[in-house]
Amino acid sequence: MVEMRKPIQVSEAIERVLGYRNQGATEYVSINDCDNRRLGVNIVAEEPVPSFDKSPYDGFAFSSADTNGAGRNHPVQFKVVEHIGAGQVPVVKLKKGQATRIMTGAKIPEGADCVAMFEICQTYEENGQSFMTIKRQMNAGQNIIRKESEVTRGTKLVDRGKLINPGVKALLATFGYSEVCVAKRPVVGVIATGTELLDVNEELQPGKIRNSNAYMIESQIIRAGGECKYYGKLADEFEPSYKLIRNALNEVDMLITTGGVSVGDFDLMPAIYEKLGADVLFNKVAMRPGSVTTVANCAGKMMFGLSGNPSACYVGFELFTRPVIQQYLFNPNLFLKRISAVLGADFPKPNPFTRFVRCYITYDDAQIQAQLAGMDKSNVVTSLAHSTCLMILPGGTRGFQTGDEVEVLLLEDNDGQREFQHVQRRD
Amino acid sequence: MVEMRKPIQVSEAIERVLGYRNQGATEYVSINDCDNRRLGVNIVAEEPVPSFDKSPYDGFAFSSADTNGAGRNHPVQFKVVEHIGAGQVPVVKLKKGQATRIMTGAKIPEGADCVAMFEICQTYEENGQSFMTIKRQMNAGQNIIRKESEVTRGTKLVDRGKLINPGVKALLATFGYSEVCVAKRPVVGVIATGTELLDVNEELQPGKIRNSNAYMIESQIIRAGGECKYYGKLADEFEPSYKLIRNALNEVDMLITTGGVSVGDFDLMPAIYEKLGADVLFNKVAMRPGSVTTVANCAGKMMFGLSGNPSACYVGFELFTRPVIQQYLFNPNLFLKRISAVLGADFPKPNPFTRFVRCYITYDDAQIQAQLAGMDKSNVVTSLAHSTCLMILPGGTRGFQTGDEVEVLLLEDNDGQREFQHVQRRD
Repeated sequence: MVEMRKPIQVSEAIERVLGYRNQGATEYVSINDCDNRRLGVNIVAEEPVPSFDKSPYDGFAFSSADTNGAGRNHPVQFKVVEHIGAGQVPVVKLKKGQATRIMTGAKIPEGADCVAMFEICQTYEENGQSFMTIKRQMNAGQNIIRKESEVTRGTKLVDRGKLINPGVKALLATFGYSEVCVAKRPVVGVIATGTELLDVNEELQPGKIRNSNAYMIESQIIRAGGECKYYGKLADEFEPSYKLIRNALNEVDMLITTGGVSVGDFDLMPAIYEKLGADVLFNKVAMRPGSVTTVANCAGKMMFGLSGNPSACYVGFELFTRPVIQQYLFNPNLFLKRISAVLGADFPKPNPFTRFVRCYITYDDAQIQAQLAGMDKSNVVTSLAHSTCLMILPGGTRGFQTGDEVEVLLLEDNDGQREFQHVQRRD
Repeated sequence: MVEMRKPIQVSEAIERVLGYRNQGATEYVSINDCDNRRLGVNIVAEEPVPSFDKSPYDGFAFSSADTNGAGRNHPVQFKVVEHIGAGQVPVVKLKKGQATRIMTGAKIPEGADCVAMFEICQTYEENGQSFMTIKRQMNAGQNIIRKESEVTRGTKLVDRGKLINPGVKALLATFGYSEVCVAKRPVVGVIATGTELLDVNEELQPGKIRNSNAYMIESQIIRAGGECKYYGKLADEFEPSYKLIRNALNEVDMLITTGGVSVGDFDLMPAIYEKLGADVLFNKVAMRPGSVTTVANCAGKMMFGLSGNPSACYVGFELFTRPVIQQYLFNPNLFLKRISAVLGADFPKPNPFTRFVRCYITYDDAQIQAQLAGMDKSNVVTSLAHSTCLMILPGGTRGFQTGDEVEVLLLEDNDGQREFQHVQRRD
């Protein structure tokens, strides 16, 4: 009576999903709107930095040769012939015995090859003319920030796919990118299925729950860098469900459905995949939660059939949908950052399937601990609010103890990781 | 000639800034627009979760007492009198020998006190009537998710000030918050000063640089949760600068200026603070970069006079402005998360001041390493793009070696930290 499905490993499932190699597109946005987008092209230094020799201090610029022989008892005198701030351009070419009063960031005048800070100079006026004396010998190039010393023209500074953070935005401004080429956000359709679902503004009714999965997924899509298009919720009826899904597929880059993928009497998705002629990549994964997660491809568009259970839905999105969104965004690090941590609590019950446990990390000296966000497995919605990572507990015949080394996937890290390594069984 | 300023410690500077105890406000936004905002109120469970007894499986619900004496050789037979999916409400009250076919998430019918999964039941039809047999004794309460078992009504689930992530958004939907009370983003004015600055779309000119600080700070403000209002850039002229700053103060919650705070001939900010009658909290901090950072308060509004040097400006914002933005957002964790890490490179040159070094972290087993984002101190703009934290190197007479334990401030962590601990000297 009940359809038997053969579970595949998580790494194998991910490999099948990414086999489709989805391609993203680019678009231009104003530099004012580029925060948290990903770069659509490499950033290359259009000019050298700095683009001229400049002063790192407030002080005097002159020729170091003029201080030859200077010392504590042998002050050298300079006539101050120009006074420039940052952004002002020196016009006087210095001759022997002449100096320019100069501010931090200003261009070094012709004829000067060093800068002496105010602190080591004495100044005085005589007949309306400024003079400066110094009791120290200076070297050629001393206190000069050389043109090109930070970056030479043409250097690649940041790779395509990098998230635009304050530092990247500063670079874009430095090189004059008033319009920025960014990766277009893929449009991810969301359809919630289930007769039990109420809208968020409806009063609770017996036997019903409010639709929280669609809002949760919308938020996950935004965090991953995508754009959510919500198609509403569907009752468990075949024809209207089929039609809405077929039409939605024409308007989105990929489609997520929640619920309806199990083998219950009202689970319509398997029949819908069949009628669409979609290629079902898998419909059972050796993991908890979310073993019923199904992924299909319909005429080049990925369809993610996530579980209706909130935590299973959450995990299914992060493992399978998020990497595809990263493909669209040119992010070469498709996967959640995976780091080692020390387990902060016992987890004695063994499970044959790999488990992804909601947790958060704490820091104890330079060591990372993974703490459970909810001890109780039914505590599904509330524990997600405090989760910042998913702990991977490999399947096997043994449980886990406090102090065991485990791996965790960081949910809020922007860098990510290039490979998803297979999770080894623990027996 | 040069004004002498007395530097204060970073922790003392932060204490003075936060002494003003800025108060935020709240506003309502649609649940669709609440991502990455901070909660303006605690989230309380408006109803229990679940709000009714429900089934965790697809199977049959009945009274466990009816299986008394059942066993491998003693099947018990039930008449299947109703068939319900999730969201459908059972209407038949079960009598002895009756069962309801039930789907995951559905409400348990009256008269039933357990659920048996499909896998352990046999079904058959006779004269158009469905029957089910089971060869196992069931217990009262078995496979029933009890009303209120996850959350009781009135439980506080998430605190005011928490960032709305996918899990928090799911909770908001679960409890019917179609409008969400969030902290209003404080409006942070930004004015760049310096005759050397060009707009981002201008061609480079001799002695000039493009204004990258304003864009960088706009991005830092957005990352911190504030709203940026950019007033443009000012040449180093007193009257227009004074007027623009005075007018801007009327329109913003706080004001950032970049540049002009040093003691150079064209640094106008000290005189502007004086003419405004602003209370200057400090104008020199014992730190690198950013020792000239100045903070003042003008009629209750904070004025942050950040350095014109990009990395000093960046650090000054994160140390002094960001915590004030968090006050407005009700985030009790005002400070950047501070964790221990192992230094991944030598840093031999000692410095009397505390240094904040741009770096990123890597993970080696469960241990955190801090890597320098730019080895060269002049490498200022490019290294910020790859920085995810600031390493704190205490001032003192000794340098640092690979393997030393250091502390780092995480720039992209959403949780933050309640206290800013004083940085101890290292001699």
